Amino acid sequence: MPGEQPIFANMVKLNTNENPYPPSPKVEAAMRQLCDNMERFRLYPDFKAEPLTAVLAKCYGLENDQVFVGVGSDDVLSVAFLTFFHSDRPVLFPDITYSFYDVWAQVYEIPYKCPMLDENFRIRKEDYYQKNGGIVIANPNAPTSIAEGIDFIEDILEHNQESVVIVDEAYVDFGGESALPLLKKYENLLIVQTFSKSRAMAGMRIGYAMGSPTLIRAMNDVKYSINSYTMNYPSLSVGVAAVEDDAYFRECCEKVIRTRTWARMELERLKFTCLDSAANFLFVTHPFVPAAKIFAALKERGIFVRYFNKPRIDNYLRITIGTKEQMERLMEALLEIVPVAEKKEGV
Amino acid sequence: MPGEQPIFANMVKLNTNENPYPPSPKVEAAMRQLCDNMERFRLYPDFKAEPLTAVLAKCYGLENDQVFVGVGSDDVLSVAFLTFFHSDRPVLFPDITYSFYDVWAQVYEIPYKCPMLDENFRIRKEDYYQKNGGIVIANPNAPTSIAEGIDFIEDILEHNQESVVIVDEAYVDFGGESALPLLKKYENLLIVQTFSKSRAMAGMRIGYAMGSPTLIRAMNDVKYSINSYTMNYPSLSVGVAAVEDDAYFRECCEKVIRTRTWARMELERLKFTCLDSAANFLFVTHPFVPAAKIFAALKERGIFVRYFNKPRIDNYLRITIGTKEQMERLMEALLEIVPVAEKKEGV
Repeated sequence: MPGEQPIFANMVKLNTNENPYPPSPKVEAAMRQLCDNMERFRLYPDFKAEPLTAVLAKCYGLENDQVFVGVGSDDVLSVAFLTFFHSDRPVLFPDITYSFYDVWAQVYEIPYKCPMLDENFRIRKEDYYQKNGGIVIANPNAPTSIAEGIDFIEDILEHNQESVVIVDEAYVDFGGESALPLLKKYENLLIVQTFSKSRAMAGMRIGYAMGSPTLIRAMNDVKYSINSYTMNYPSLSVGVAAVEDDAYFRECCEKVIRTRTWARMELERLKFTCLDSAANFLFVTHPFVPAAKIFAALKERGIFVRYFNKPRIDNYLRITIGTKEQMERLMEALLEIVPVAEKKEGV
Repeated sequence: MPGEQPIFANMVKLNTNENPYPPSPKVEAAMRQLCDNMERFRLYPDFKAEPLTAVLAKCYGLENDQVFVGVGSDDVLSVAFLTFFHSDRPVLFPDITYSFYDVWAQVYEIPYKCPMLDENFRIRKEDYYQKNGGIVIANPNAPTSIAEGIDFIEDILEHNQESVVIVDEAYVDFGGESALPLLKKYENLLIVQTFSKSRAMAGMRIGYAMGSPTLIRAMNDVKYSINSYTMNYPSLSVGVAAVEDDAYFRECCEKVIRTRTWARMELERLKFTCLDSAANFLFVTHPFVPAAKIFAALKERGIFVRYFNKPRIDNYLRITIGTKEQMERLMEALLEIVPVAEKKEGV
């Protein structure tokens, strides 16, 4: 089940890693153009999703046949699991990572194994040098927010030339390093990104994969066997507009990064430990006040963050970076919740 | 692979069973409202798809928990296959029917068996009284266009109380009889419908299933394991508007039915045999001119119909009902292609 989606006036929603800024004004213009051509809605959309795959290919310096688009990166990842993971050997991904990898493995009856992150919540690349049926690495990882460099990813690729290696870069635009340059060298690399975070369009459901023509063709073959027309006409049109407004995209990402830097400083003043984030969220823990208590106390105040009641991370909170104003409200609330004097519980 | 989607000026597109009329003006109004609230696009859509499931439930006299929505009926049917068909016994559907049933069965490794339609392309209900792992009946069937009555469907249900029986009613609004009243009596019945045909919104990708809360819950469980947010924000909003404009919906269906009656008469004057259609298309064959030749000759004239190069139906054409004007252009072209005098080949 996804995170809660409560919506009421004056709430502060920092629980599902959405972008605090609206989509580009060019997206609005594209939407208005659609309204002048409602006749087009009676027809099926282009099943090759070509305007969108083409503009993404151009944006990332790839050929059109190196891009696959789907209904959010969940759809893209799900199709990738179904397409590439057929071995008797287990697919490998970290024990703490995006919560859908094991769900897809279970639905599609794919064996899997989850090497543990180290004590600092870092991926140990050597864990991925064993025989496997595929590898999935979220980079930056979620919910830890930690990014690894491109050399780290390349080491994993070098040791795994027989497996498909998926790098899930949902959060890469907030300070991570993309594996994109490695596509030239590794035909077994699939990079997955999304419009839901950095492009501020979670409501549109657009995700994409980039890889060799062989991998993309295989994914399309599976896609055409399930649902030929996944991307509706508005998605295709406004998706193109979003990619074309590169300046707006960069500006939003920079604003989020600036707010993250400020928010981390403020949280540290309140004695929180924050992992090094290259994402649009912070993963934090407090030395005296349990995460579950902080979560509940924030919720009472109309501030929603994410709490995972799972082994190893049940004393952490994942806090989406909102606007500066939202983060100020968060800090004011936390000031009431966590003790400023040490070693005293404040809830 | 789906049917061709050529788009050029002045073409007559009668090959993918789209509605010849645009969506309701209320759909356009709903789209324009979305443009005034672009801020909403940064947020994930409602994962329960509630505005849309609720309005569909109301429209069909059901409870909200009896409706499932997906990205076109292909998505809905694919989720249903994955959810319900797990037996070692074969799933049953006719040898001539919607071309995706066997594809989904293959992708999900579901055993299946295809009882033959009789010599008049009718389903023999007795074929479905054998042990099975599930049943799928398109009613009206495609590409035959023939509809069976509700008693026929009930007979199949009565003989199959241990299997999930899916009735695919993609074309029901053009003269078929829905199995809807049987939902009260049979908890194993799942009815699937779509916005792509009668609601003139193929470009939006909206399909839905109606069934017992048990079946719908099971489908949602699988859906939440694959992609929690399949329906984007525009789909949910304009989908509601489309359902609410019932008068427009009925008017479009009636216009299509009137044009179908006229088109059939014209085709019969040209010596075509037309199966009895309760759909927005006609399935036709000519006694002297091979279907493949007619298909090619129409294509040369910018008129696209559908030809299936498959056993038993390779001398038939599936012709979507377009506007009266489009059908007139079709008849003019056919007049050039098929001989008016008997027993002379005219291509």
